[in-house]
Amino acid sequence: MSRPKAVVLLSGGMDSTTTAAIALSRGFDVQALTFRYGQRHQAELDAARKVVQQLQITHHVVLDIDLRVFGGSALTADVPVPKDTPMDDIGREIPTTYVPARNTIFLSFALAWAEVLQACDIFIGVNALDYSGYPDCRPEFIRSFEMMANLATRAATEEGRKLTIHTPLIQLSKHEIIELGTSLGVDFSSTLTCYDPSAEGAACGRCEACLLRLKGFREAGMDDPGRYVSVKRSQEA
Amino acid sequence: MSRPKAVVLLSGGMDSTTTAAIALSRGFDVQALTFRYGQRHQAELDAARKVVQQLQITHHVVLDIDLRVFGGSALTADVPVPKDTPMDDIGREIPTTYVPARNTIFLSFALAWAEVLQACDIFIGVNALDYSGYPDCRPEFIRSFEMMANLATRAATEEGRKLTIHTPLIQLSKHEIIELGTSLGVDFSSTLTCYDPSAEGAACGRCEACLLRLKGFREAGMDDPGRYVSVKRSQEA
Repeated sequence: MSRPKAVVLLSGGMDSTTTAAIALSRGFDVQALTFRYGQRHQAELDAARKVVQQLQITHHVVLDIDLRVFGGSALTADVPVPKDTPMDDIGREIPTTYVPARNTIFLSFALAWAEVLQACDIFIGVNALDYSGYPDCRPEFIRSFEMMANLATRAATEEGRKLTIHTPLIQLSKHEIIELGTSLGVDFSSTLTCYDPSAEGAACGRCEACLLRLKGFREAGMDDPGRYVSVKRSQEA
Repeated sequence: MSRPKAVVLLSGGMDSTTTAAIALSRGFDVQALTFRYGQRHQAELDAARKVVQQLQITHHVVLDIDLRVFGGSALTADVPVPKDTPMDDIGREIPTTYVPARNTIFLSFALAWAEVLQACDIFIGVNALDYSGYPDCRPEFIRSFEMMANLATRAATEEGRKLTIHTPLIQLSKHEIIELGTSLGVDFSSTLTCYDPSAEGAACGRCEACLLRLKGFREAGMDDPGRYVSVKRSQEA
């Protein structure tokens, strides 16, 4: 019997990579979906491709959607990425790295692909604990999207294929994610979490995504195998 | 005082054009959003541009999203568009022209743009009366999307800008849409409704979209000013 298909949103960061490993461990035939959405860091796409190879995912679609036409985010417009945010302040206010409606857009495409594949499962690596406070990472958003999705498609309304959105990381801390990924054989050296990597794909070590990742590795008692522009400085922070 | 902005999904068909005219008549500064989504008929985009000129809409974004990578529809894959469907059968089953999750994707981008514009209003010309039975044209889908959208963005969750999705045509028949558009000065000769137009942008007169449009003009007691490949045959049908 063939394995059921699941669409997994894969950015190439540690959370989405761990999520893909979880979907594989649960017996799904993973269909990875990555977006080139005008983010400044093309290195993210290279990381996604490496992860796809390492996890032996056989289907990977990279979709172009140019969110730069709207602007409004440090990730897609000419706005500086915040650096060196004190850890206690992360998540207190939504930072400029918030991309308007990004997860809504990503999940909408995942929904379209799932319907074409006759798949009933979508995985997304959102996390509402060690995170930057983005509204579209919260459980209530995901539940609401799932309800909407089950009214949106022929699959759900006529063919009885109800969709489930899986968020296996949503209540985990970063170090729990790292420990879980490690237990599933994820090689975190391939993943790239940084909002503002160098042209060579080295992480900055100072944006909120790097700070949360580095804290996670410290708390897990592990060395972060990722490449950093200034490892010493950031790991001492 | 400047007019409030509203994002209007504009395909260049008669429904979205009438919707844009309604938004203008209600005093909104219309920001038109059109998608080049791999549909076979590029003539639709030319129609959208003509409508933008005629209605003197000052902001128009055409966004590329390639839904062909997923396939699954007669509008985006190499599947024939159904022709000559008996009128009583239209809407009974969802036809192959259904594009998986299309309105979910379109509304997600509209949501992103609305947030960047600090707009609280989105208009979409869906119609659940004289229609092909698409699930993402029904009122329950729209209401559910609106609920989700109000959990998705910084605008709604932190800044108190609740979003409203306006569907002014949803309970109108085609002839009522035509009469309303006409009363608002819409020139329907610029609009293109057909799923399968000729290379020159003439409507086929035989797909479900053409059949519903032609029926609407007949019931309104008006001549359809649109260009057809085979006008006589279809208006006699």
